[in-house]
Amino acid sequence: MANSKKSALKENNGVSAPEITSNDAILKIKANRKLQKSTTDLVNAILNGNITALSQAITLVESKNPKHALQANTIIKACLPHANQSVRIGITGVPGVGKSTFIEAFGKYLTSIGKKVAVLAIDPSSSLTKGSILGDKTRMEDLVKDNNAFIRPSATGTSLGGVARKTRESIILCEAAGFNSIIIETVGVGQSETAVHSMVDFFLLLKLAGAGDELQGIKRGIIEMADAIAINKADGDNTERASLAKIEFNRALHLYPVKASSWQPKVLTCSAIKSEGIEAIYHIILDYLKLTVNNNYFQSRRSEQQKFWLIQTIEDQLKNNFFGNSKIKDELQKQLKLIEDNKTTPFVAAEYLLKLNKIKH
Amino acid sequence: MANSKKSALKENNGVSAPEITSNDAILKIKANRKLQKSTTDLVNAILNGNITALSQAITLVESKNPKHALQANTIIKACLPHANQSVRIGITGVPGVGKSTFIEAFGKYLTSIGKKVAVLAIDPSSSLTKGSILGDKTRMEDLVKDNNAFIRPSATGTSLGGVARKTRESIILCEAAGFNSIIIETVGVGQSETAVHSMVDFFLLLKLAGAGDELQGIKRGIIEMADAIAINKADGDNTERASLAKIEFNRALHLYPVKASSWQPKVLTCSAIKSEGIEAIYHIILDYLKLTVNNNYFQSRRSEQQKFWLIQTIEDQLKNNFFGNSKIKDELQKQLKLIEDNKTTPFVAAEYLLKLNKIKH
Repeated sequence: MANSKKSALKENNGVSAPEITSNDAILKIKANRKLQKSTTDLVNAILNGNITALSQAITLVESKNPKHALQANTIIKACLPHANQSVRIGITGVPGVGKSTFIEAFGKYLTSIGKKVAVLAIDPSSSLTKGSILGDKTRMEDLVKDNNAFIRPSATGTSLGGVARKTRESIILCEAAGFNSIIIETVGVGQSETAVHSMVDFFLLLKLAGAGDELQGIKRGIIEMADAIAINKADGDNTERASLAKIEFNRALHLYPVKASSWQPKVLTCSAIKSEGIEAIYHIILDYLKLTVNNNYFQSRRSEQQKFWLIQTIEDQLKNNFFGNSKIKDELQKQLKLIEDNKTTPFVAAEYLLKLNKIKH
Repeated sequence: MANSKKSALKENNGVSAPEITSNDAILKIKANRKLQKSTTDLVNAILNGNITALSQAITLVESKNPKHALQANTIIKACLPHANQSVRIGITGVPGVGKSTFIEAFGKYLTSIGKKVAVLAIDPSSSLTKGSILGDKTRMEDLVKDNNAFIRPSATGTSLGGVARKTRESIILCEAAGFNSIIIETVGVGQSETAVHSMVDFFLLLKLAGAGDELQGIKRGIIEMADAIAINKADGDNTERASLAKIEFNRALHLYPVKASSWQPKVLTCSAIKSEGIEAIYHIILDYLKLTVNNNYFQSRRSEQQKFWLIQTIEDQLKNNFFGNSKIKDELQKQLKLIEDNKTTPFVAAEYLLKLNKIKH
């Protein structure tokens, strides 16, 4: 990595640039070296479990500055061999189900038995609504003060793909920093559950008794994704209704075919606010891990998830490159008009636009 | 179109080709003129409602020969201004629900009131199972003999996208030939319902009383797509059960939000084998058309469908071009191995593969 001044100059400019004073060049080299040093320092600090360094690195992951993106990639690459040593738990549920309270109770239980807990979130809507989810850390007052917990609000972004990518890379950084229990929270909106499901080992669905949103859950495939359903707010007057809901959900779950993991999803009740039923959920997760590590589903699923993200990223990028091209944008409008006027078919128009895209390169 | 021999030669060869004897050249020109003539003849015959010509043109649409594809495109383009004058009805239901019997009864009713009926199908599995659907025209014995009906088995193909494209282009040809009632049948398997839904005006779901596949229908969004649900085999001992099922489905439909068409989906019972309840279905379709043509949903939906097919075709092609590239195929495997060994991330690997693809061009 010991660049001579000359080669560094060449790297920075691409062509020889005699106008640049040697002073400028030296400053650039110094800046580059400083960046390299700071990258190495950051990685070392992360691997030592330094929370400030972890936060800084996640900020780089989330940055839109291309320089930061490069630095983030270097850091992630260095962290990779130290990642993967964790259980990744996805938690979803409609607003009002008590997610924050649940995560606070669950997180505190995990740290009490010696785990290190990182809480991340996927909420593609947060960029618009200014972060309903985890935006306000005070909703997890106690957990936020816990030295063995790390809470990070959802990355913002215009696309679910972008937000999901940032969260997924943050998981790697958290794991490298020694967090062995990763909780990914999401709101029950749009496709975000599917994104979370594709990056976790265990998927927990929080429900309320008699909320009447069962049809939505079935329709959107969320119940199908769940490894466990916890009926929250099972306290006081609500206890009996929660027990009845448990029976109902157990019945509904039996209508689904056996999962690829051969795990039979469990239903239980809990009261996050009273910290009741929290330990039981942890034991269900342990049972799940025991089964799936033994039958190799755990490992093959993580490998499948990696493949999914690779293909997904490529497909998103192919579409963005094509439809983001300004010439294609104009021509697309023209072709749509021709289609509307019955002068061409969608298929002929598609061929034309694809050819146009090739000529451009 | 009056090409001189010279220019025709140039067109055929791209470069001047003195080796070719003038005899060969003349033969080529004659063949080209014959093709042009046959194309024009075919279009004229289709516009005159000639069934043989329609069949021939659909065969060209379905052909894998690139020359046929070009000819098919010319024919479709010429037919386009004469298409769109029809109602397109999608019909789905699980095997055993009595689809063929229903279409026979429904088609015969339509021709009896002066309609011209074309029956097409989307069945991407038929290439493997050798056409369970419509493959055997004898299942619609009477309709097949009807001069105002045209029945065409599903195109075969390896991908749903390919099969759907062919069916969609066949719709245009059928409409140009004067068929004003287009029925698109599909089996209740995989994504084929979504494909059919995206090319029809009205979507009819056939059900049986107490078949117990309600959950599947909800999960896969089929009930959500339906503009009407007809509970078939409502005859003999089954009449009462069918009536009860009607009440159940009506209740279930009210759980869904109001449709963009502002149409409230209808449920009714019928007996295809006894030709009972068939006219009622036709009147429901008339009501639907009245509502949606008036509120402009009909027109805007057709326009949305065109746009959908344009975008879909482009996206499919972008993916096929990328992942079908043999160099990318090899490198993809290598990158997957690197990901598995924790030496890269899906996102970095995706960037690498995308760059590689660009360099190639």
